[in-house]
Amino acid sequence: MKKFINKIEDIVTEMIEGQVLASPEILQHIPNTKVIARKNINKNKVAIISGGGSGHEPSHGGFVGVGMLDAAVFGEVFTSPGPDRILDAIQNVVGEPGGLLLVKNYTGDAMNFGMALDLGKNLGFNLEKVMITDDIALEGANLSTGKRGIIGTLFVQKIAGAAAEAGLNLLEIKRIAQKAVDHTASFGISLSGSIVPANGKPGFIVPEGEMEVGLGNHGEPGLRREQQKSADECAEMIMKNIEQYLKLQKGDEVALIVNGLGGTPMMELNILARQAIKILQAKNIKIHKTFVGSFITAIDMKGFSFSVIKLDAELKKFLNAPVVTSSMVGN
Amino acid sequence: MKKFINKIEDIVTEMIEGQVLASPEILQHIPNTKVIARKNINKNKVAIISGGGSGHEPSHGGFVGVGMLDAAVFGEVFTSPGPDRILDAIQNVVGEPGGLLLVKNYTGDAMNFGMALDLGKNLGFNLEKVMITDDIALEGANLSTGKRGIIGTLFVQKIAGAAAEAGLNLLEIKRIAQKAVDHTASFGISLSGSIVPANGKPGFIVPEGEMEVGLGNHGEPGLRREQQKSADECAEMIMKNIEQYLKLQKGDEVALIVNGLGGTPMMELNILARQAIKILQAKNIKIHKTFVGSFITAIDMKGFSFSVIKLDAELKKFLNAPVVTSSMVGN
Repeated sequence: MKKFINKIEDIVTEMIEGQVLASPEILQHIPNTKVIARKNINKNKVAIISGGGSGHEPSHGGFVGVGMLDAAVFGEVFTSPGPDRILDAIQNVVGEPGGLLLVKNYTGDAMNFGMALDLGKNLGFNLEKVMITDDIALEGANLSTGKRGIIGTLFVQKIAGAAAEAGLNLLEIKRIAQKAVDHTASFGISLSGSIVPANGKPGFIVPEGEMEVGLGNHGEPGLRREQQKSADECAEMIMKNIEQYLKLQKGDEVALIVNGLGGTPMMELNILARQAIKILQAKNIKIHKTFVGSFITAIDMKGFSFSVIKLDAELKKFLNAPVVTSSMVGN
Repeated sequence: MKKFINKIEDIVTEMIEGQVLASPEILQHIPNTKVIARKNINKNKVAIISGGGSGHEPSHGGFVGVGMLDAAVFGEVFTSPGPDRILDAIQNVVGEPGGLLLVKNYTGDAMNFGMALDLGKNLGFNLEKVMITDDIALEGANLSTGKRGIIGTLFVQKIAGAAAEAGLNLLEIKRIAQKAVDHTASFGISLSGSIVPANGKPGFIVPEGEMEVGLGNHGEPGLRREQQKSADECAEMIMKNIEQYLKLQKGDEVALIVNGLGGTPMMELNILARQAIKILQAKNIKIHKTFVGSFITAIDMKGFSFSVIKLDAELKKFLNAPVVTSSMVGN
């Protein structure tokens, strides 16, 4: 297997250790847990907790820090963390003002974060959760769990984290985070599955000359398989779906993420960003900020997605607020 | 070919456009050139210019901005930019205080940047250059051009850029940049070659179960092929070479880059970073800062490298100085 790893069973532990060792000024590993918390835990504000299966690095550990997440909880690769692991995060970072769980909408995460929330409440913690459901590719499909949470998660974590840092109360932050979810649409395409270390083979094979439209973040099948198209054609197809979903109109203001899924070089992401921005500009939609990079990945998948958030004054203010994490710095 | 591109001949142009469109507050494309310059050109300080073949994104366009590069010049994929392209950069960003060319040591770059320097001098520009030679893997080999320049380039660009921003004169900055080169050692390993779009196939094939030690940044052969080892064993082999080269001793202070070559997920980079840091800590070598990410890539190569710079007070001051680029923000 063409991977730089040690024992497969140690991957998550070693990855957590590595991330914290590399950013000791920002992060700490809570001993005997699968939780990365910010270096200086502040229990005088609402705590923002997120997490999920591993394999999406730098998410979510890379987004722990002042102005974003208070803690990230890690499951095994592409496996939701159990309620006990999530409760470890709650018990270590949530104080009097309470905690908000930001949960990508997958069956396992919905269940485990839901159970952890109940367990935490029973212990006296003031907790709320927001389900992230930004993937519009499968909207029409018959999914009992509803839309999936993918790369728009980054917007929700950033905005909720800034609102918490500003001292807002739990229900206000929940309202703003839910608004961020409702204003965000994401859609992706892949040219390959990702290689889960325990399997050593791709989760699915996309034949040469084809592409998977509406990819899942864990190698779930997408919406449909079609002939591979040019970067510009892919960008046009995705932006058309996003524009329709968000009902974008001339004069609207948005932020854009062009996200690589781990095996897509920046060369291609820049080419895709070019067309996405041109399409929005041609419709006189104002782009407040563009993020291009591999923020929430599927290990080494050759794929990308666009996420667009339609901004209002409140969302824009919190998107702009300063943040200090290992994978998103600045303001 | 599993790539999100349009016409192969448009890759570099579109990539430049995309990068500038995504960061209009930081970057500008100088019309009719293959040059990305910082948005607000400041000719009252020494200009720092770097560049080389494309395919190493986010380098070098991602490192243009206040506190780092004034301009980046792009050649075609894995092809040095001609002297005319480099002269475009010189003519657009160099003022009275002069300009410093930071050149990765490859035959093509050495020749083209050298010619551009002579052409620029004939036009009356005050120019100097520093050759970057941080790759210690092939040190003993019979290379007529000397050691290659690889990922340590990031340290040299950051430090020279900060010195220029601080208002130092050209010869002082040249001295400091050369010191940064002399204090830096890099070494890499790969598990695959990269797929150049014009070829559609990897530049070299590494059989399953083997690895290329001392990889070249463009898919040049490395030092030797050997049996694939664990992440920790790879880290140990590389750090041993780097420690010996830099004569690192207890109490020394360093900065570390764990760089992915485009096809290496953050999962693996974090695991590699963990061991690199543990090795340095075990020898009581102080790590001032660690950068983990894919900064200077070889398109989609599955590979990584470590770069270590031995810091003194001067190098540390300039490494710490604020910087605002699209791929390195903060201080």
